[in-house]
Amino acid sequence: MSSAYTRLTERFQRLSRFSHLSAIAGWDMMTMMSPAGSRARGEALAELGVLQHQILTSRETGEDLARAKQASLSSDELANLAEMERAWQQAVVLPSELVEAKSVAGSRCEHAWRSQRPANDWQGFAENLKEVVSLSRQEAEIRAQNSGVSRYDALLDMYTCNQLDSIFADIKAWLPDLLQRVIARQDQQPIQRPQGPFATESQRQLGLSAMAMLGFDFNAGRLDVSAHPFCGGVPQDVRITTRYDGQNFLSALMGVIHETGHARYEQNLPSQWLGQPIAHARSTAIHESQSLFFEMQLGRSPAFLARILPEVINHFGGQDALNQQNFIRLAQRVQPGLIRVDADEVSYPAHIILRYEIERALIEAEIEVEDIPALWQEKMQQLLGIDTTGNYRNGCMQDIHWTDGAFGYFPTYTLGAMYAAQLFQALSRALPDVQQRIASGDLQPVFSWLQQNIWQHGSRFSTRELITRATGEDLNPRWFRQHLESRYLTDEFTTGRTTV
Amino acid sequence: MSSAYTRLTERFQRLSRFSHLSAIAGWDMMTMMSPAGSRARGEALAELGVLQHQILTSRETGEDLARAKQASLSSDELANLAEMERAWQQAVVLPSELVEAKSVAGSRCEHAWRSQRPANDWQGFAENLKEVVSLSRQEAEIRAQNSGVSRYDALLDMYTCNQLDSIFADIKAWLPDLLQRVIARQDQQPIQRPQGPFATESQRQLGLSAMAMLGFDFNAGRLDVSAHPFCGGVPQDVRITTRYDGQNFLSALMGVIHETGHARYEQNLPSQWLGQPIAHARSTAIHESQSLFFEMQLGRSPAFLARILPEVINHFGGQDALNQQNFIRLAQRVQPGLIRVDADEVSYPAHIILRYEIERALIEAEIEVEDIPALWQEKMQQLLGIDTTGNYRNGCMQDIHWTDGAFGYFPTYTLGAMYAAQLFQALSRALPDVQQRIASGDLQPVFSWLQQNIWQHGSRFSTRELITRATGEDLNPRWFRQHLESRYLTDEFTTGRTTV
Repeated sequence: MSSAYTRLTERFQRLSRFSHLSAIAGWDMMTMMSPAGSRARGEALAELGVLQHQILTSRETGEDLARAKQASLSSDELANLAEMERAWQQAVVLPSELVEAKSVAGSRCEHAWRSQRPANDWQGFAENLKEVVSLSRQEAEIRAQNSGVSRYDALLDMYTCNQLDSIFADIKAWLPDLLQRVIARQDQQPIQRPQGPFATESQRQLGLSAMAMLGFDFNAGRLDVSAHPFCGGVPQDVRITTRYDGQNFLSALMGVIHETGHARYEQNLPSQWLGQPIAHARSTAIHESQSLFFEMQLGRSPAFLARILPEVINHFGGQDALNQQNFIRLAQRVQPGLIRVDADEVSYPAHIILRYEIERALIEAEIEVEDIPALWQEKMQQLLGIDTTGNYRNGCMQDIHWTDGAFGYFPTYTLGAMYAAQLFQALSRALPDVQQRIASGDLQPVFSWLQQNIWQHGSRFSTRELITRATGEDLNPRWFRQHLESRYLTDEFTTGRTTV
Repeated sequence: MSSAYTRLTERFQRLSRFSHLSAIAGWDMMTMMSPAGSRARGEALAELGVLQHQILTSRETGEDLARAKQASLSSDELANLAEMERAWQQAVVLPSELVEAKSVAGSRCEHAWRSQRPANDWQGFAENLKEVVSLSRQEAEIRAQNSGVSRYDALLDMYTCNQLDSIFADIKAWLPDLLQRVIARQDQQPIQRPQGPFATESQRQLGLSAMAMLGFDFNAGRLDVSAHPFCGGVPQDVRITTRYDGQNFLSALMGVIHETGHARYEQNLPSQWLGQPIAHARSTAIHESQSLFFEMQLGRSPAFLARILPEVINHFGGQDALNQQNFIRLAQRVQPGLIRVDADEVSYPAHIILRYEIERALIEAEIEVEDIPALWQEKMQQLLGIDTTGNYRNGCMQDIHWTDGAFGYFPTYTLGAMYAAQLFQALSRALPDVQQRIASGDLQPVFSWLQQNIWQHGSRFSTRELITRATGEDLNPRWFRQHLESRYLTDEFTTGRTTV
């Protein structure tokens, strides 16, 4: 007779194998699938999802969790058990009818959105979104009752609204002014756009070179193309994607560097635990901290840009705009715009705060779906000085998150950016010559530090404990602000911060 | 309370969704997967396989099958029910320990074979193969007891050994002589090899052109690369593969045409039944008849070759060897060789008969694994006049089938070739100007005939009933012989059989 804990590890191992198949089929759907395969694929993935939900929420799982808590377990086993219980708890509190209804409404809303967005059809979209919001409120209500917090809090991963409010209030206090100063400063710096077209295959080869410089394990992953870039697959075979703009190679290059950050985290999760919940990446915020560490802290640093410039010239040939100073200016250009995913790192938090404030009020039922466009317009004006009147397509209809009912997700992007800055600051203390290392292409100490402090831990510690162990303190927005001020308001290029 | 039959359709629908995921993950394994993902993928697919086996062989399935037989069902439903029962019967007779043991032994044997084959290590390979043969004999024994036929018969899909003996005896009676006459004849015909290299991308574009000419639905499928060409995926999204030889573009071109035959069958299975067993392709022999119809009856016909030659020149540029007569000779060259998968259609049956005779004796325990090399040597000498002494690598170790314990599969290749010839003969009666149609690129009547007679029926009829309905008679090897004699011993190019 095996112990309750052993049975649980077997059950979660089995769930992990099913997740492997759904991750690969999901990646295929975004990269390879023929249009006619769409419906059958959706049904197949849903069937597997139902099965996984049944296994996870089965009576046996609940009983074994209760029994295993009585057993004598190692600290790793206890951490694994805690993650099992968290997954079970998340799944078991919701009635399956609600899960089903939310999934159906989300699919319907997302499917219609694909044509409503280009048609700027807010009225049509709003009808479906109301259903998604209504079901998401029900979900939040149930989770809130279960955990004794507010409804929106119940959808958040680790921080409460109050904490986020205070973090975002801090950012709101200095961001608009910082943004104005950066723009004024960059207006004085002439910039030259490189002349395209840049062949897709050359861009792909440049992306592969960047991945190699950043330690991507090509024995355990690959690079492909999809409409919306993502990092998918499984830790043993990580699939990252990008898309190529023939006139702007920096877009794909920086996208690939971003996804490589996600990928290296996945590729370096604790191999001895793979298949168990403790081996999972800690949280979406930590995942985003790794991609932004790679893109913002490394990829857009003058040291890295100077290092990769010869590769760029190697792939596209030389031209005036590809001198070092201009190349760095291109990669660090700040320009507030309508679209979140295209935003630079200075204006990005504004996009997040706007969405956070709206979705929070929506879930707390302080506003209704009809109120979104006016609020969007008001906050875009306030935070970025941009008018979005009547432009639903590139306004409140631009993201996929709400169509699926993924409320509570947006804040993790900015938390990730702040963690990334804080981690880089801690790394710089441990490795004072980090900029020289980057400039000379000696990135191994950087990766070792991340491996040591983040990757190898999987889900052993909570997000906040992980960050505290790595940096000596809980989340401190100060480092993010310092990073932005140093990069965008001082001449990082020629200051002592780098030797380039 | 739903009826037993309805419950069965739901259960098989569910199984079909799981098969969808394993088909896509299986395709991915052969085309996209990173090496490090191999073990996790194998485990994930095995886990799903175990689940499917459990669902199929569950007590409920057995009970519902018994109940549904009492119900009043339409003829299509009865055919569907019969296919359900066949699948259940196939699965339920074997003890799960045997299924498991065979799967493990097969994986071990195949895995080792991948390095033993290049090393020509027969001794090492034989050790693993013995285990596979022993378990396959056990399987055959159980199936034989269940169905009251001989052990090897029990592994065959539709024909008995006696029937195959008589069919193959017929072929053996005329094939060696035919082969000698064809070779003597072709020795008199000068042939010129086209000068490579032929760029992979150009070869791929040519393959896509051929697929388009042959009606492949690109909205429901794609072409990729793998070490061993195959047709996989699902009917809504068929995945065919090829491999490119820089010096010989005909190899990939004919391979693509072959797989397109498989693909069109899959793409045109009865859509109203997809997800149910009745919608499956009828059998491996019928599947192979479609690929060989496309490759041998259409693809290597002078009419089609003349039609596609301008495309070839369009992709590679012109050269002396790419004149019409020489191009046809290249595509119809007969040259006995060591390797089955590279064989021309005249020597191919010899490779099959040899394997049939050996595997039959092996399963019937008339010979042992140690006897294989000597028999191989003897039969290759007899049938093709080729000496294989000591060349295990390109002799009895060349195929993957036996490593997995897939005994009883080889005969379907030659049955497929004979069906293809017989179907083409019937088509020619219905469409007397078929060669003119092919020559002018008007292939729609050909596809309509196949759709009408084969594709749309899925598994509604047995293989033999399907063939009899389509051609007016049961398998008749005469048409295959007539096809070979007409193509290889008369001047098909200038006779009345084609207008080219």
